[in-house]
Amino acid sequence: MNTELDNLVELIKEKIMANLDGKKDIKKIPIEGSGRHVHLSKEDMEKLFGENYKFTVLKELSQPGQVAYKERVRLIGPKGVIEGVVILGPAREKTQVELSLTDGRLLGVKGVLRESGKIENTPGIILSNGKNFIEIKEGVIVAKNHIHMNEEEAKELNVKDKDLVKIKVHSERPVIFEDVLIRVNKNFKLSMHIDYDEGNSCMLDKDSYGVIYE
Amino acid sequence: MNTELDNLVELIKEKIMANLDGKKDIKKIPIEGSGRHVHLSKEDMEKLFGENYKFTVLKELSQPGQVAYKERVRLIGPKGVIEGVVILGPAREKTQVELSLTDGRLLGVKGVLRESGKIENTPGIILSNGKNFIEIKEGVIVAKNHIHMNEEEAKELNVKDKDLVKIKVHSERPVIFEDVLIRVNKNFKLSMHIDYDEGNSCMLDKDSYGVIYE
Repeated sequence: MNTELDNLVELIKEKIMANLDGKKDIKKIPIEGSGRHVHLSKEDMEKLFGENYKFTVLKELSQPGQVAYKERVRLIGPKGVIEGVVILGPAREKTQVELSLTDGRLLGVKGVLRESGKIENTPGIILSNGKNFIEIKEGVIVAKNHIHMNEEEAKELNVKDKDLVKIKVHSERPVIFEDVLIRVNKNFKLSMHIDYDEGNSCMLDKDSYGVIYE
Repeated sequence: MNTELDNLVELIKEKIMANLDGKKDIKKIPIEGSGRHVHLSKEDMEKLFGENYKFTVLKELSQPGQVAYKERVRLIGPKGVIEGVVILGPAREKTQVELSLTDGRLLGVKGVLRESGKIENTPGIILSNGKNFIEIKEGVIVAKNHIHMNEEEAKELNVKDKDLVKIKVHSERPVIFEDVLIRVNKNFKLSMHIDYDEGNSCMLDKDSYGVIYE
């Protein structure tokens, strides 16, 4: 009971601060649904496409410097195959495959929730481009939802790098995502990234946006 | 600003009541992920399976009297086909197909969020059992999430039929679903029903449960 009352006092304090501030609850955060995609290491790029292969940029992504290539790969799991999976650039330290739980079930690969880059003890998979195969021993993740922002945006939202916040999504089927990770970097641009399962759960569309809930 | 402060006062009042009561926030609500399924009208049952056809009950569902049949149907949309869709019984007034947004995208049928039974101006689809076809002109819905309960459970949770509540899901990827519909009937048994997109968004598993959030 005491803990509950302590929590209550904390909640009231936060709400009052947010109201006095008058900003925290108002700023609209754009939301993007991230489809399944692959980041390749330099080494795996060469194994699949050949030495010094030059990828064709299809489009620039919302985060500066990040691109989607025209080239695609096939994911081959024990239970199924997904064709035409987009490759994002530039090359990463380690190859990483980001899926939704729905994708994982189709492929027969367990969906493990992870921050991008933290791939220790995650499942592996086979990737093919129709010419070559590679097998990765780990690197398949369900990416933890997160919000990219720069320092000014973090200040305005009253959050800092690595904070976990609740985000209320305004949409046809509103939900509040908990434990959303804040990622601050001077090169980032304000945008929340969720996967397709999460996007479908709130019926994300072009008019949807997020706000920090408390 | 006044509205915000009013909302705040309201929130504090609710929280204090919930804490004094000591019940509202505690009762665990079991959650079931409802896969895609079909309810058939008597007439459509006969068109597909023949006059006075007797369905075989595969299993009883959580809500008393509701069953899943052994017989299955194929859903045929403009963009794709889904095989082996379960038929629930007994027969309903009108044929209704319940899908996730993910399913709707695969079939090429727009996902329209509706309460069960409210099928006016929803998309149609073709159903087949490998022997006969029927086309329904409307009846494809994405079912609004809801909680079944009887009167005693409603009293204990301090809610009534048709209320909309927030439900916090305790799970690996916690979310709070807003506008969850309360459905009270003496034959119901406490259970929250969400679709597979929603289930995946919170990584629903056997240890997950919901609580009324505020």
